[in-house]
Amino acid sequence: MTKPEFSKGLEGVIAAESRICKIDGEQGKLYYCGYSITDLVENCSFEEVTYLLLYGELPNRRQLDAFTLKMRANRKLPEPVKDMIRSFPERAHPMELLQSVIAYLSGYTEHQIHHGPDCYCTDTLHQVAQLPSVIAGHWRTRNGRELVDPRADLSHGANFLYMLTGEVPDERDGRLMDASLVLHAEHSFNASTFTARVVASTMSTCYCSISAAMGALYGSLHGGANERVMEMVDEIGSVEAVSGYVKKALDEKRKIMGMGHRVYRAKDPRAVAIEGYLRDLSERKGNQDYYSILKEIERVFRERMEEAGKPIYPNVDFFSGAVYRLLGIPRELFTPVFAMARAAGWLSHILEQRAGNRLYRPKAYYTGEIDRPFVPLDRR
Amino acid sequence: MTKPEFSKGLEGVIAAESRICKIDGEQGKLYYCGYSITDLVENCSFEEVTYLLLYGELPNRRQLDAFTLKMRANRKLPEPVKDMIRSFPERAHPMELLQSVIAYLSGYTEHQIHHGPDCYCTDTLHQVAQLPSVIAGHWRTRNGRELVDPRADLSHGANFLYMLTGEVPDERDGRLMDASLVLHAEHSFNASTFTARVVASTMSTCYCSISAAMGALYGSLHGGANERVMEMVDEIGSVEAVSGYVKKALDEKRKIMGMGHRVYRAKDPRAVAIEGYLRDLSERKGNQDYYSILKEIERVFRERMEEAGKPIYPNVDFFSGAVYRLLGIPRELFTPVFAMARAAGWLSHILEQRAGNRLYRPKAYYTGEIDRPFVPLDRR
Repeated sequence: MTKPEFSKGLEGVIAAESRICKIDGEQGKLYYCGYSITDLVENCSFEEVTYLLLYGELPNRRQLDAFTLKMRANRKLPEPVKDMIRSFPERAHPMELLQSVIAYLSGYTEHQIHHGPDCYCTDTLHQVAQLPSVIAGHWRTRNGRELVDPRADLSHGANFLYMLTGEVPDERDGRLMDASLVLHAEHSFNASTFTARVVASTMSTCYCSISAAMGALYGSLHGGANERVMEMVDEIGSVEAVSGYVKKALDEKRKIMGMGHRVYRAKDPRAVAIEGYLRDLSERKGNQDYYSILKEIERVFRERMEEAGKPIYPNVDFFSGAVYRLLGIPRELFTPVFAMARAAGWLSHILEQRAGNRLYRPKAYYTGEIDRPFVPLDRR
Repeated sequence: MTKPEFSKGLEGVIAAESRICKIDGEQGKLYYCGYSITDLVENCSFEEVTYLLLYGELPNRRQLDAFTLKMRANRKLPEPVKDMIRSFPERAHPMELLQSVIAYLSGYTEHQIHHGPDCYCTDTLHQVAQLPSVIAGHWRTRNGRELVDPRADLSHGANFLYMLTGEVPDERDGRLMDASLVLHAEHSFNASTFTARVVASTMSTCYCSISAAMGALYGSLHGGANERVMEMVDEIGSVEAVSGYVKKALDEKRKIMGMGHRVYRAKDPRAVAIEGYLRDLSERKGNQDYYSILKEIERVFRERMEEAGKPIYPNVDFFSGAVYRLLGIPRELFTPVFAMARAAGWLSHILEQRAGNRLYRPKAYYTGEIDRPFVPLDRR
């Protein structure tokens, strides 16, 4: 039998219809439920965008207030979960803890697996609401500090910074954190979102589906690009050293982290937004170092690429790490913070998957032997 | 633009090559790494089959001894994991706990993500080795008893029964438990195995990949068929009541649980094996009730199907629940026991995926709107 053609990694294969996210890579546009990311990030809180992703419509004031109240009421963690956080091995990665805690929290919920959005939201909002508490709690524990209880009068982003540092953040920092969460909330199918949908297709719980997605995001081929951008920035160290570094890297055919994106040919609209935030934040914090180095990397890189006739632009990861660092978020938390934002998108995909469900069950093409003669243990 | 054709649930789509499992549905045959399941279940321990799945070859005596030693040495749980088990909410499902614990245990391991099988096995065997300890520990806690430490002188199956009941099982019961684990260790792509591969394709850890697979197996469309067979048996209650029950169910177009299988047109070879075990076990335990009811369901069902010209056979789930119950395993643990067996198969797929890896990233077909005009909150 000749080997059939198939697409490794399901590249180019349509796995489902979706109304959640549209990426227009040619034009450099991104839409959540039909709204441009640029409009959303300039005008909406993360809680508002979470509502949009779950219900498909922007809320009015009354709806948003009710939703925000519910989401904020769910920020607290049960005591045994706090113990899990405190006992987690010191050198382990927080993504492993997040995956574990979200599945554990599934045990605290009465699950209602049917189709009205309201019942979903009681079942599910917790995973989005509780993630910042887990991430911040783990970081504080690891650094010998006690957990800080959430505050219901702060936005999702501001409350995260508060639980991380123990201090209420500057209002502009809180808004910026929220804006970054909006930018990362959703990005169509990728390994983690697809994982969430595959698990949801068995009619498993939302928690269990999101926990599984965490496992995928943890992989080095998925999350973590902004961590590596900041490693590069640290390694370069100064604006003067950029040109030599980039040229050497390109000559040695090494990748420049944060440059280019599989689906965007024009500039990633999230990169445009976050670059603006980084510029303002750098000025406000009186620290231009990261921004200057990044802009110089972009300039030198573009010059070289234009010589080669290939325009490649920075993506969102290129600037986001520097924003996080200036907000006081350590590099180890960049992927967890990504998960914290993306949980809203995962949840949206889980609900969509369930609503028109078909269990995922692709085929394997078998290339091994059959009917191997069995030899008993003592004659092997 | 006309809507493109695509296969919902990726049905019929080849997602990868694999050398692990061949299901010959026409002939009713099943192979692990080229060896027929019938040979394996009659001759091999679960530990031996786990070795086969991980290395692709059956071990010789020396290799099996070393492997068994290593696997048994890893059965113990860290104290904080025991605390997680003790604190898990009483009414929650053990699958949620398994998913959580396996991700948590990832934090206890130095991960080595490269390609020699030996390094994989140090990284990974724990997940297979520790699952029975979690399942048995949770069950005992829930019933107000203390956890029983594992014993290294018992097989995987026998040790599970020991940790569950606190008593060393009859040797034949231990062997039977092991045989059932062998029958369930692997079954090619399905939602949970596919989930494990998708997560592994990001280069996440084996633990995180297996934890994710647990989330999929927990779903009601995936695991749990043998639980529902036993619910049906309990509902019917006697051999005399079978005929009326089956006829009524078929007239009302309800499904008879445990009958038929998507990929087998001939009799599932696992069903043949486990039926034999159930017959012997029923005799040995002096309890023919379940076996008689099941055989009568099969007979009446087959009669009706033959009238309709559609031969449909019982699958492995039809008989396995009764075996478990006669071994003293409560119905709530049927899916966890399935996971305990399948962990070996998942691990095999994770290693295979990593060895010739390509990140899974299928496409979504967008059916929503774009460029919806943004209306500020106060005007909605």
